[in-house]
Amino acid sequence: MIDLPLQIVIAICILALALAAILARNLLAQDQGTPKMREVSDAIRVGAEAFVKRQYSTIAILAVVLALVIFVVYFLTGQSDLALATAAAYIVGATCSAVAGIVAMYVAVRANIRTAAAAQTSDGKALDMSFHGGAVSGLIIASMSLLGVSITYIALGADPLHTPFVIVGFGFGASFVALFAQLGGGIYTKAADVGADLVGKVEAGIPEDDVRNPAVVADLVGDNVGDCAGRGADLFESTAAENIGAMILGVALFPVFGVNGILFPIVMCAFGLLASMIGILCVRGRDGADPMDAMNMGYYITAAISAVFLFFGVQWLLGASAGWMYFFFAGLIGIILSVCFLRVTLYYTDHHYRPVQEIADASETGAATNIISGFSVALETTAIPAILIGISLLLSYWCGTQTGIANGGLYGTAVATIGMLMVCAYVLAMDTFGPIADNAGGIVEMSQAPDAVRHRMDKLDAAGNTTKALTKGYAIGSASLAVFLLFNAYMADIAKLTGKAFEVVNLAKVDVFVGGLLGAMLVFLFASFAIRAVSKTAQSVIEAVRVQFKDNAIMAGDRKPDYAAVIDITTSGALRNMVLPGILVVGFPVIIGMTMKYEALAGFLMVGTIAGILLALILNNGGGAWDNAKKYIEAGAHGGKKSEAHKAAVIGDTLGDPFKDTAGPSLHVLIKLLATLTLVLAPLFI
Amino acid sequence: MIDLPLQIVIAICILALALAAILARNLLAQDQGTPKMREVSDAIRVGAEAFVKRQYSTIAILAVVLALVIFVVYFLTGQSDLALATAAAYIVGATCSAVAGIVAMYVAVRANIRTAAAAQTSDGKALDMSFHGGAVSGLIIASMSLLGVSITYIALGADPLHTPFVIVGFGFGASFVALFAQLGGGIYTKAADVGADLVGKVEAGIPEDDVRNPAVVADLVGDNVGDCAGRGADLFESTAAENIGAMILGVALFPVFGVNGILFPIVMCAFGLLASMIGILCVRGRDGADPMDAMNMGYYITAAISAVFLFFGVQWLLGASAGWMYFFFAGLIGIILSVCFLRVTLYYTDHHYRPVQEIADASETGAATNIISGFSVALETTAIPAILIGISLLLSYWCGTQTGIANGGLYGTAVATIGMLMVCAYVLAMDTFGPIADNAGGIVEMSQAPDAVRHRMDKLDAAGNTTKALTKGYAIGSASLAVFLLFNAYMADIAKLTGKAFEVVNLAKVDVFVGGLLGAMLVFLFASFAIRAVSKTAQSVIEAVRVQFKDNAIMAGDRKPDYAAVIDITTSGALRNMVLPGILVVGFPVIIGMTMKYEALAGFLMVGTIAGILLALILNNGGGAWDNAKKYIEAGAHGGKKSEAHKAAVIGDTLGDPFKDTAGPSLHVLIKLLATLTLVLAPLFI
Repeated sequence: MIDLPLQIVIAICILALALAAILARNLLAQDQGTPKMREVSDAIRVGAEAFVKRQYSTIAILAVVLALVIFVVYFLTGQSDLALATAAAYIVGATCSAVAGIVAMYVAVRANIRTAAAAQTSDGKALDMSFHGGAVSGLIIASMSLLGVSITYIALGADPLHTPFVIVGFGFGASFVALFAQLGGGIYTKAADVGADLVGKVEAGIPEDDVRNPAVVADLVGDNVGDCAGRGADLFESTAAENIGAMILGVALFPVFGVNGILFPIVMCAFGLLASMIGILCVRGRDGADPMDAMNMGYYITAAISAVFLFFGVQWLLGASAGWMYFFFAGLIGIILSVCFLRVTLYYTDHHYRPVQEIADASETGAATNIISGFSVALETTAIPAILIGISLLLSYWCGTQTGIANGGLYGTAVATIGMLMVCAYVLAMDTFGPIADNAGGIVEMSQAPDAVRHRMDKLDAAGNTTKALTKGYAIGSASLAVFLLFNAYMADIAKLTGKAFEVVNLAKVDVFVGGLLGAMLVFLFASFAIRAVSKTAQSVIEAVRVQFKDNAIMAGDRKPDYAAVIDITTSGALRNMVLPGILVVGFPVIIGMTMKYEALAGFLMVGTIAGILLALILNNGGGAWDNAKKYIEAGAHGGKKSEAHKAAVIGDTLGDPFKDTAGPSLHVLIKLLATLTLVLAPLFI
Repeated sequence: MIDLPLQIVIAICILALALAAILARNLLAQDQGTPKMREVSDAIRVGAEAFVKRQYSTIAILAVVLALVIFVVYFLTGQSDLALATAAAYIVGATCSAVAGIVAMYVAVRANIRTAAAAQTSDGKALDMSFHGGAVSGLIIASMSLLGVSITYIALGADPLHTPFVIVGFGFGASFVALFAQLGGGIYTKAADVGADLVGKVEAGIPEDDVRNPAVVADLVGDNVGDCAGRGADLFESTAAENIGAMILGVALFPVFGVNGILFPIVMCAFGLLASMIGILCVRGRDGADPMDAMNMGYYITAAISAVFLFFGVQWLLGASAGWMYFFFAGLIGIILSVCFLRVTLYYTDHHYRPVQEIADASETGAATNIISGFSVALETTAIPAILIGISLLLSYWCGTQTGIANGGLYGTAVATIGMLMVCAYVLAMDTFGPIADNAGGIVEMSQAPDAVRHRMDKLDAAGNTTKALTKGYAIGSASLAVFLLFNAYMADIAKLTGKAFEVVNLAKVDVFVGGLLGAMLVFLFASFAIRAVSKTAQSVIEAVRVQFKDNAIMAGDRKPDYAAVIDITTSGALRNMVLPGILVVGFPVIIGMTMKYEALAGFLMVGTIAGILLALILNNGGGAWDNAKKYIEAGAHGGKKSEAHKAAVIGDTLGDPFKDTAGPSLHVLIKLLATLTLVLAPLFI
């Protein structure tokens, strides 16, 4: 018999999938615009599907190899009873993650054309199309994650004291696929973008998204495979890993809460999914209104409803403790933190505020000062988020201790993480809206639609840029909380394996300190590889386009550019270049753990995570700020388009591209991957 | 009666000062070139002296305030017996550091003109002049540091079990002054450099160091106040802090070695000073030879003699342990690490190797790809150094445990640090040689000397660029080892104050983890402030020059530029902008320590240090690589000067300027300052 909480989770997930189906059916029934639009959209769709197909084939090979490794590790370390279960959970996690990414991409490449078509008549309707496209992805990804964890839990016996340690395989599978999805997609999207810009705007002097640029379709494909599939996989594994980590912590509290404490995380995420559904249905496009207003409103509704659900959920499942109200407060801290992160990210990446304006000002004296100024802003953006994370961890820990339960502090931080991730499905909808709007803008541009249509799309496109920056802030914030949870799950796992307490990671020991140093170094090295991968792949794109431009036939309009050739080169470049950094981050921690053992590896993991959080903030926010400084100038400041300031700002923006869309988001995934990796391969490190 | 080891230290220091005096006398007796050269040189000297005077006045005020704070802290925390001694040691340390910086600058601004004059006839002689100028600084700084620690130790009673804890004040004084010296000088030098380049090369289209550029003298002043005074103060406090930290660790081994274990560090540094003197005397300029060959030879001689001295020193002072040979091995690891760091830095910043060539290649597609590629290289440069530091720490710790002494492991890492710092005086000579050669090049250029002279100076200038990059690598490497020592000194200090063991910094505790997160964040925030300070001050420089250029009289040759006005603006800008970051890094750790207490502060310190080491590597090596990619193109690659690739490379180089000469070197100082600060203010954190 399945526990009531699990029944509720499954019911809510089915409801969410039903809503997604309705929204998708409605979306697909919409007008697909002019033949010219369809032509562009078809090219994007074909390119994206081809990339994703090849990408996931590569990932599948790597994933199967790793499944065998996991099986062998468990088998050889005398845990043969767990070998099959863990490897199976891993495969399921990897598969679910892949499906989540593919679905996000599938929907996005169909929503873009409908959005472009809707923009012919109404900007409100265009918002509805693109946001509903995002919502379909968000709902499917969130419910897949919950269903995956729940069903794996049930399939593995639903033994409250044992199963949470086995389903870590699911989390690792999700992380592993997410890493390659984000990294490969990220390299693709920015190599195409940078390549298209450099060879188009800079060398040939044609505008962005110009139909004569052979790399322009690859650029539009990139939005789908990088932003949609990538962030989808990222947040999929965030919820999966956080749920599993919190379930493991729940094991320690079994004497107090029974199975309720273990199922609490997934129930609350399901409640959050319900809140997100309501929030999504509240978003309505209105002609002439700022699209951000509607989406912000939906967000606040989701957050408020989540808070109410949180209250009842805590009362129901954790009411066994006298001070359960403090767990509610801890969860509230998580919800509030999610709002704070959005605001801070907005401050650093929106042109209404000092940072972006400072970068725009500095563009007047050229590219060098634009970049110096932007880099200074990027470094600065670590401050407030780090303080917010610190306060949230300390406060939610304190709340946990006030409940009067032994080890309650740690569970307090878990509840805060759960609170933050309750709004996840809504955030995903907002996030996927971005690339859909961006793509629709590209389609409108390339199909040479009338100015009014372009103008409508520009507004939506700008909102998409904002939401993309915001959701990255949310992703890194929630990852920061989730990893703290996962550290403790790792320590609980090691304690279970060794049969003795593991509660101290002593950084004053030389091996732990060295572990920490190497962990932080890995983060920087990974970012280096990710950025270089973009640079290399972009180089191939540039060369491919130069060949096509050589005889001037395209520029003269005598021949159509060969979009597919560029897409093909970008695809193979991105896939080739994602393998080395991917293997590095899986292999290096394993070597450290096997040679220096579990305490040093914990130092590696924790300091590496701190470095990863901060570097991701730098890369994401720096990139966002450069992007918007350029947009701010394009809107007329400092001489507007074609001014020297604009030229400088374009260079800054190009630098920011691999920061914010390749290395930064890949770091979110990386820090969670490190945590789930150490959890799953723990038997190797003792 | 003073212990024999101390007598030897003092004797060697006096010998070193005597050698410095002879070299200085000989140097000052040399020809001072043409009147035109003297005119330029005088302007540089006056500007540098004016800056340093104003800078140290500002620092003095801040230092006195802090001395009062230290006194009050000790007084109010019931340690009134230590209050006066600690504050006095602090004042002495601060004063010695200031004197060291001022001397370095004093010598450099007089050696530059002699070098320029010598270059009129012989490049070998020009090398002698500039290297001897550097040697005078190096010898004085190193012996001041040793004398300062020794005399303070004697003055405070020379009680082996007690005095080491009091002289931490000396180390903090040195760090505090070094921070502002490096930061203020670093802001000055790069604001002048960036400002001069942007307004001269980019806007007015005149060459570097052109006599018509009103900012050009400020740029040359900057080399002296930033590179000479700054790095002088940096390595002064490195040796001081390391000696004090190692003496504190020696206290724990008192039962084994007696006072010998406590005096071992300063004796070995004195032996290293002797080795450096020999190495310095071996450097002889030869016409037509590569100056790097002579300097490298001197370096290897110094390292080899140091190794021999190390052997006898260990046998003499640590021979009481059966396994003393292992301490010798640990020291050898330090010496070898210093060589490795120089090689790695060379690999990443020299145009003969892949990284710089990669950046130069990327310049062909513009500034954006130049910077993306450079940034990727910069991030990559963390890998090998971090692995080298890790291996050195682990190996020297292991050596220490093999000596059979309890706590010997920690002392093993101390001996490795000492080994690395033995060559310090020689490295300082090489380092100060750089800005002297750079300045001499500027004087030759501005005095419009014949081409043959310029050509001779160009070669020396290029060697100076290399040594500057190498010594920065050495500085960060030695700082990395030294801080590990200082952590343990901090923990010993806390244990002494609280009367109970403090051996665990548990990163798995939420407050320690948050401390670590905030420590790493502080490093990034500080770098942000330092870079922004350059950007702001450069802006003032640009505006000041534009005013002078306005009526075209200077460009037409009708009026001489007003160099002093620009120097004045740069001076006040640099001083104004150094205060905020300086106060931030002193104030923030104190707040953390007072609110979160000593264990969380230890987490703050350790993770902050890891982040600081890695970020300093990124900034130093990235900046060096961009610089040399530009020089590589200027030498003819990728179209040479005036090509599009060159324009792109200039932008990369400008970005690299504040990285490698302001933020990076300031981070060296910062990480040691954090360590000495926590040591001195420890009573506040319990």
